Amino acid sequence: MEPVVALVVAAGSGSRLGGDIPKALRELDGRPLVSHSLEGLAAGGVDRAVIVIAPGLDDDFAGVVAGSPIPARCVHGGAERQDSVLNGLAAIAADPDLAAARYVLVHDAARALVPADVVRRVIEALIGGAVAAIPVLPVVDTIREVTATGSATVDRSRLRAVQTPQGFSRDVLELAHQLVADQDLQVTDDAAAVEALGYPVVLVPGDREALKVTEPLDLLFAEAIVRSHA
Amino acid sequence: MEPVVALVVAAGSGSRLGGDIPKALRELDGRPLVSHSLEGLAAGGVDRAVIVIAPGLDDDFAGVVAGSPIPARCVHGGAERQDSVLNGLAAIAADPDLAAARYVLVHDAARALVPADVVRRVIEALIGGAVAAIPVLPVVDTIREVTATGSATVDRSRLRAVQTPQGFSRDVLELAHQLVADQDLQVTDDAAAVEALGYPVVLVPGDREALKVTEPLDLLFAEAIVRSHA
Repeated sequence: MEPVVALVVAAGSGSRLGGDIPKALRELDGRPLVSHSLEGLAAGGVDRAVIVIAPGLDDDFAGVVAGSPIPARCVHGGAERQDSVLNGLAAIAADPDLAAARYVLVHDAARALVPADVVRRVIEALIGGAVAAIPVLPVVDTIREVTATGSATVDRSRLRAVQTPQGFSRDVLELAHQLVADQDLQVTDDAAAVEALGYPVVLVPGDREALKVTEPLDLLFAEAIVRSHA
Repeated sequence: MEPVVALVVAAGSGSRLGGDIPKALRELDGRPLVSHSLEGLAAGGVDRAVIVIAPGLDDDFAGVVAGSPIPARCVHGGAERQDSVLNGLAAIAADPDLAAARYVLVHDAARALVPADVVRRVIEALIGGAVAAIPVLPVVDTIREVTATGSATVDRSRLRAVQTPQGFSRDVLELAHQLVADQDLQVTDDAAAVEALGYPVVLVPGDREALKVTEPLDLLFAEAIVRSHA
């Protein structure tokens, strides 16, 4: 069977977290965020990982690669998130061990505690024929939209908060990012890039524990989740 | 000066939290959620509180009232949240100590850790002339909107997540809830009710610590926040 490959985007600086460690290397329960991510991905059925890091940090990530539960390697990201994904896709295409992969999951390293079930649901949707499958959560807060004249309540029952990993047919994701690069499109995530090609995006249930660690408060919450599992 | 009154909505069952204690009485760091709320409101400048509770629970809330940092009393809520607010407004109007209040802040008891600064910003906006002022946060997740044919990305830069306390001119809030009741309007919060009358809503910065405790994970997060303050 073709391997399921994860592209783990770990090139963020983490300036909002404070400190000068790259965000993906910030420790949670004694291990880097990206290591937690690799464990969740592996537990959910991912076979191999390509970690997209900032240039020059290969030595810093060497321990993460050595300790990964699945074969992993690092590639360098670009200026924008989409450049990082493009570089990761190019590395997959050029790697004899990965080039047979039909599916790619793009994951934010900072969503360190992604449960295996979420990863599994994304992969199952792809195996079931989805070209793109993303985990989402209902939006529980009242949401307002700022308008030209003020703001107005939005019908939150129609809104979904998007998480990662986002799963794709690899060939479609490549085409999508090529289109985004060629036409200089602004997209907020990979699903939006694939949508720009005209493909539908399948929604699967996410999980609040897959929260993205961005600010110190998120790290505090992630630590509380880890403790609750202990 | 007229007192600033808070209507603390504490009539929720808390079934999503598990257990059979009303949500507002669930303990956080050894005290009921609603007691934490009263402390935040008091610290932010609220002078008096009317707590809207489910009928029959007066004895259960007696300790909360006795321990409140500001004078507080309970009134019974109705079937829907807006009935609860209407009952609370009627109690304020009928109370000689409260009837002079020009401003009312409506607060969810489950937003237990609302920082004093958030309360203060809402009150300051009202004193500055706002008819309605609500705390909001930027939306950090990518948001999709489910449509008739699938889903599509929404421009999150225009979205705001709404918190409480929501502050109002008391007479306008009364008129708004009367309109909602008379015309059987569906509104998700008090700001939307006031908007239905045609008044603008002023947005002030909220705070992530004012999270609403709804599920066990929220209680876990709230506990982590309390510990981080210790």
